[in-house]
Amino acid sequence: MEEINNIQPNSDSLVLTSRVRLARNIDKIVFPHKLSDSDGKDLVKMVEDAFYCNDEYSKDYETIRLWEQDKITQRSYFERHLISNNIINNSKKSAFIYNKDETVCLMINEEDHLRIQCINPGYNLDDAFEVANKIDDIFEETLNFAFNEEYGFLTSCPTNIGTALRASVMIHLPVITLNHKMQGVIYALSQLGMTIRGLYGEGSKVSGNIYQISNQITLGITEEEALNNLKTVVNQIVNQENIAREVAYKNYKYEIEDRVYRASGVLKSAILLSTQECLKLLSDVRMGCEMGIIEDINIQTLNDLLIEIQPATIQRNNGKIKSSKSINLIRADLVKNKLKINYKNK
Amino acid sequence: MEEINNIQPNSDSLVLTSRVRLARNIDKIVFPHKLSDSDGKDLVKMVEDAFYCNDEYSKDYETIRLWEQDKITQRSYFERHLISNNIINNSKKSAFIYNKDETVCLMINEEDHLRIQCINPGYNLDDAFEVANKIDDIFEETLNFAFNEEYGFLTSCPTNIGTALRASVMIHLPVITLNHKMQGVIYALSQLGMTIRGLYGEGSKVSGNIYQISNQITLGITEEEALNNLKTVVNQIVNQENIAREVAYKNYKYEIEDRVYRASGVLKSAILLSTQECLKLLSDVRMGCEMGIIEDINIQTLNDLLIEIQPATIQRNNGKIKSSKSINLIRADLVKNKLKINYKNK
Repeated sequence: MEEINNIQPNSDSLVLTSRVRLARNIDKIVFPHKLSDSDGKDLVKMVEDAFYCNDEYSKDYETIRLWEQDKITQRSYFERHLISNNIINNSKKSAFIYNKDETVCLMINEEDHLRIQCINPGYNLDDAFEVANKIDDIFEETLNFAFNEEYGFLTSCPTNIGTALRASVMIHLPVITLNHKMQGVIYALSQLGMTIRGLYGEGSKVSGNIYQISNQITLGITEEEALNNLKTVVNQIVNQENIAREVAYKNYKYEIEDRVYRASGVLKSAILLSTQECLKLLSDVRMGCEMGIIEDINIQTLNDLLIEIQPATIQRNNGKIKSSKSINLIRADLVKNKLKINYKNK
Repeated sequence: MEEINNIQPNSDSLVLTSRVRLARNIDKIVFPHKLSDSDGKDLVKMVEDAFYCNDEYSKDYETIRLWEQDKITQRSYFERHLISNNIINNSKKSAFIYNKDETVCLMINEEDHLRIQCINPGYNLDDAFEVANKIDDIFEETLNFAFNEEYGFLTSCPTNIGTALRASVMIHLPVITLNHKMQGVIYALSQLGMTIRGLYGEGSKVSGNIYQISNQITLGITEEEALNNLKTVVNQIVNQENIAREVAYKNYKYEIEDRVYRASGVLKSAILLSTQECLKLLSDVRMGCEMGIIEDINIQTLNDLLIEIQPATIQRNNGKIKSSKSINLIRADLVKNKLKINYKNK
């Protein structure tokens, strides 16, 4: 990683969300991929009982059984970052429990029996970890998790054994990307035991200059150490992006403003918008907001759009649409309207 | 040329301007390229005297002596379609007389001693021809033009001998261009004795899908025949463009609207705009106006912009600007403001 000056990291505006996930398996039950559909559904029931028995905590939660959902609905939950591709592949025996504001999602029969996932907006890993721990405690009152004194928590995939904790942030790095410096960042992160991925985590492409950075190491390290390592790395990357922005703005003020305002102009006027182009333009506008070039668009509006423009979410919200052209039409329309409403609410 | 149905040609909106030009040379004086600078200036005086002696007609006219103008000013007259590159190359001995509304320009010591040029907005060749004839009559009262009973008017370049008349229209053909059908049109035009050129006539590139179509034949044909031939051809091309638009809009409604609205969005939001990109976007917006997709932009605003965005015109109106980036900045700004004022005046 390049040398970093001590500029105050403007982390809050570059980090979209902070996520902590704990993997747990119930002792003496085979891992999900070995479970029959029927046994899987029994396990879903077992996890539900363990959770909902805590009346006070679980009152705002709801279970979604994936075998009761059509493909588009399943996909739309994925687009909202609630669930993974893995759990969709197990949809005949998998389910998830989530709260109204979508900050907690408990996946049942993903790769492990239970994945406790807490997502906070902005840069706030500690709170996410605290909530995950609290929920872990609730489960431990009634369930017996597979745990080995020497290794820690046992998981379906060996890369998770130990803390079974994965922490990650979604971070917006347009100028490092523009400067072709991401390869260096990716290399440095791997040296530090971190992984970098696209907007939808494992196996997903990078879209709209948004990256997911997560810890890779789960063995021989405490949860707190893992979180602190991730925070150190994220702070450095935020610094690097902010310095790159300052330098770029100093040398290419008009080019950057041009990019930002054109993106906003196209989003407010296009009739057809593909997901990829839309994410790219939203990134340019987000950069404009983060850099104070655009002041009349709310970052929350942009965050909402990141999910609302996703294809299955559009399909789910608009009846049975089939052609990608129809989806592109609706996407352009909803972006225009959302940006208009954003203005009215200002 | 492809078979054309009898759709009413929407010529007025596709034809930007109609131009008629008569070439004249004064008998027994060598052609301009052989004139010394001093003799050239004497000839300028002779033409001025012949014109301004008609007090009533010439009262709104003014002479610009090119040897008194700097390069940027000369170039800005060129960008306004008043004068040609040829006359700028002769600037030590050339001048032009023009009226306030820039519908008449009399070039002195271009390729010929005198070129009477009348430009009308829209599709109106007959009026332009009538004015050119009227001015020709004024000159013939005092000047003796080189004329041969067998050939007609004698000109510096043999391609003009005879009527010495060139009539042309500026026409906007975005969909024929988009459909890659211009090669066919160009071939058909050459078979019919017509020439097709770019926005700035001879030797200029096509920009913003605007073409200049003119008659090529001046010998063995009357002025009226030449004008009628041009009108027939223009009507056919207008028909072809209109049919292509109807077909395109029927099959690609949203794609066309997308193109039009994005262009308008970028013009209203860009911070930097090159001449070429600006002309391309203005063409898309013009197409939107012509097709009734955009109703809140005045075609006259677009016509004004075609000239105001030209580099020397910007330089002339904004003091001494040197870098193309500064010009691109001013261009983007003036386009934004002009489109804003257009809205206010609506």
